[in-house]
Amino acid sequence: MAHYQATIEYDGTDFYGFQRQARARSVQGVMEAVLARFNGGEPVTVRGAGRTDTGVHATGQVIDFRLTWRKDEAELLRALNAMLPPDVAVRNLALAPEGFHARYDALSRAYCYTLLTSSIRQPLLHRTSFHVRHSLDTPAMDRAVRRLLGERDFATFGRATTDSGSTTRVLLAARVWQEGELVHVGVEANGFLFRMVRGIVAALLEVGQGRRSPEWMDELLAARDRAAVGGVIAPRGLCLVGVRYAHSSPDHLFS
Amino acid sequence: MAHYQATIEYDGTDFYGFQRQARARSVQGVMEAVLARFNGGEPVTVRGAGRTDTGVHATGQVIDFRLTWRKDEAELLRALNAMLPPDVAVRNLALAPEGFHARYDALSRAYCYTLLTSSIRQPLLHRTSFHVRHSLDTPAMDRAVRRLLGERDFATFGRATTDSGSTTRVLLAARVWQEGELVHVGVEANGFLFRMVRGIVAALLEVGQGRRSPEWMDELLAARDRAAVGGVIAPRGLCLVGVRYAHSSPDHLFS
Repeated sequence: MAHYQATIEYDGTDFYGFQRQARARSVQGVMEAVLARFNGGEPVTVRGAGRTDTGVHATGQVIDFRLTWRKDEAELLRALNAMLPPDVAVRNLALAPEGFHARYDALSRAYCYTLLTSSIRQPLLHRTSFHVRHSLDTPAMDRAVRRLLGERDFATFGRATTDSGSTTRVLLAARVWQEGELVHVGVEANGFLFRMVRGIVAALLEVGQGRRSPEWMDELLAARDRAAVGGVIAPRGLCLVGVRYAHSSPDHLFS
Repeated sequence: MAHYQATIEYDGTDFYGFQRQARARSVQGVMEAVLARFNGGEPVTVRGAGRTDTGVHATGQVIDFRLTWRKDEAELLRALNAMLPPDVAVRNLALAPEGFHARYDALSRAYCYTLLTSSIRQPLLHRTSFHVRHSLDTPAMDRAVRRLLGERDFATFGRATTDSGSTTRVLLAARVWQEGELVHVGVEANGFLFRMVRGIVAALLEVGQGRRSPEWMDELLAARDRAAVGGVIAPRGLCLVGVRYAHSSPDHLFS
């Protein structure tokens, strides 16, 4: 039985999130079902670096799994992509280092949120962006998100993934940039609280629309109260773009 | 009652084409249903420049319709986009010139077909591109498609839209260009036969994969036989990008 790591891409629209669920279609569930067919019908457990929510996409999710497979990795990659449905694919695949765990070994995860700023919706971007009717003050949003950098208690922006869990995380990179009518928010952290990126983007929208100054982020951090932000933003603009490990890192997490 | 022209965008995936159908969801049907609500429940007829097929997208479809509306065009545009479903939107709207007919007055239509050339599928591009596993000889495809320019009998590439109709059309612009792993085929003609763009792209793929030379296009034209191409390519890579009129033209039809 060999141990593999793989980077996968998916369109999250028609998945109820990454995590396996009894009665709903999940990325983990679909991957495990296909892998079991390559494993003589024996169940395969897939572990993912990030437990993306319903409707959240990924271009750089990392998983690991154990499988009895007699041919090489290139052949496994091709066979998997031939069997997987159109909304999920394996981008690359390799033997995993000794004892590798996609979730516990991740040094950081990077997410990107895409906003479409135009007076008019664009149906072809509907699944992968959130539409804002007016232009945004991107430089102010960029200054705002950088105020969150470092080790912080992010309780205002999301909730702990376990009941007793800490709400402190280390934000390693953060930027907001514009590309035509698209505004992207990129954040990299050692880990993220539940719905934390969407909470941060909701706050940045207040800054981008001129209702709050970048310094408001300091107040939000200090509040340690999710009511201070006033909700999260829709999942469809969000994408897990990459995961960093000691032995392997994406070339660039966001441009 | 005022007469309007509008440019609309749609993600064709969940529509059974542009044209109204009794029991299936069409772009025309959805537009007409929403417009009737602005017309005191009275039916509204929408005419479109191009009758796109099931699964074909548009960023520059042009329509016209008559409506009783007491406020200005900007307000109508906003109201329509608020009521239309996420996969269709009105990009711009204006009063139509006297006697305007979106279909009969069109001087030309431009379509773009997108191919993804990579060893691995990309789920986030699945709805809007066709995946080809190997790289393509783009310069050869570009030379090939330009051989079709001018007034030609395109019977090999598609069928007439009426039983007795001519299969001669004037191809006004044609190019193939590359953008990273994406290869785009852009064509503009006074009109297109049924499935003609998808027939042309199917032939160009033979050239791009080195199985045929660009000169093969001359043979195909001469054959006047749809069996010579061997099928069409999937609709999902195809997009109606613009329509030209004497009084209004898109800034650029394809880059």
